[in-house]
Amino acid sequence: MPNRRGFKEERELVNRLEKLGFAVLRAPASGSGTKSDRPDILAGRRGLCIALEVKTTNRKVLYVSLESLDQLVRFSDKFGANPYLAVKFKRSGYSWLLLKPEDLKKSCKYYKITLEEAYRKGFPPEAILSAKLEEFGGN
Amino acid sequence: MPNRRGFKEERELVNRLEKLGFAVLRAPASGSGTKSDRPDILAGRRGLCIALEVKTTNRKVLYVSLESLDQLVRFSDKFGANPYLAVKFKRSGYSWLLLKPEDLKKSCKYYKITLEEAYRKGFPPEAILSAKLEEFGGN
Repeated sequence: MPNRRGFKEERELVNRLEKLGFAVLRAPASGSGTKSDRPDILAGRRGLCIALEVKTTNRKVLYVSLESLDQLVRFSDKFGANPYLAVKFKRSGYSWLLLKPEDLKKSCKYYKITLEEAYRKGFPPEAILSAKLEEFGGN
Repeated sequence: MPNRRGFKEERELVNRLEKLGFAVLRAPASGSGTKSDRPDILAGRRGLCIALEVKTTNRKVLYVSLESLDQLVRFSDKFGANPYLAVKFKRSGYSWLLLKPEDLKKSCKYYKITLEEAYRKGFPPEAILSAKLEEFGGN
């Protein structure tokens, strides 16, 4: 896969969520390639619960495996959380963006989104608490 | 500590929760003695969210460090989850019981509960979905 979870950089995202008042639980690093349904991060703030799949990439297009997003949505539906892809385009000079699964385009083997689309459709973690989120249909 | 998390046995508890329809996330094994606020297990089922601290013991009295329960309650308040201690008295022949933090008695350095009290006050994981839970004040 061209993108990896980026465990060290994920710590930075966790810190930002904690500063926003979220209680955060990170999943263990998956030992093998097999992975049961579970997000990389679960964060809650007084009942607002978000499940995140975390990706970083050096490219200008992010490809995410179908299973990677599908399992996130399955887990979130079951748990009662809002699913987001947290992505960092490392060479863009920008920071983390949250995307809704439906923001990505489905091709035959991957979901994908360009850097440009991501900055148009995504939002920074801080926006998740603002009224602005309602525009994104945060349910 | 006389009781440990019991990672292998915890798997059995996770399976039971999953059979009840919960989506479950386990925390990574804590590397060192220091541990930030986080439960051993977070489980959600369509918005009903529970945070569990997991303990097993071979004795007839369970001692839990003050910090162990206090951090569970802090995390849960912040997250918006219901905190429970999941305990297995391994030699009792019984299985997992869920206890509310206030079910334990606070001594100078520990919270404690006897096997007998635990079976009087606690309930099996399955009961968390039943109407009976309301008796326990599940909020």
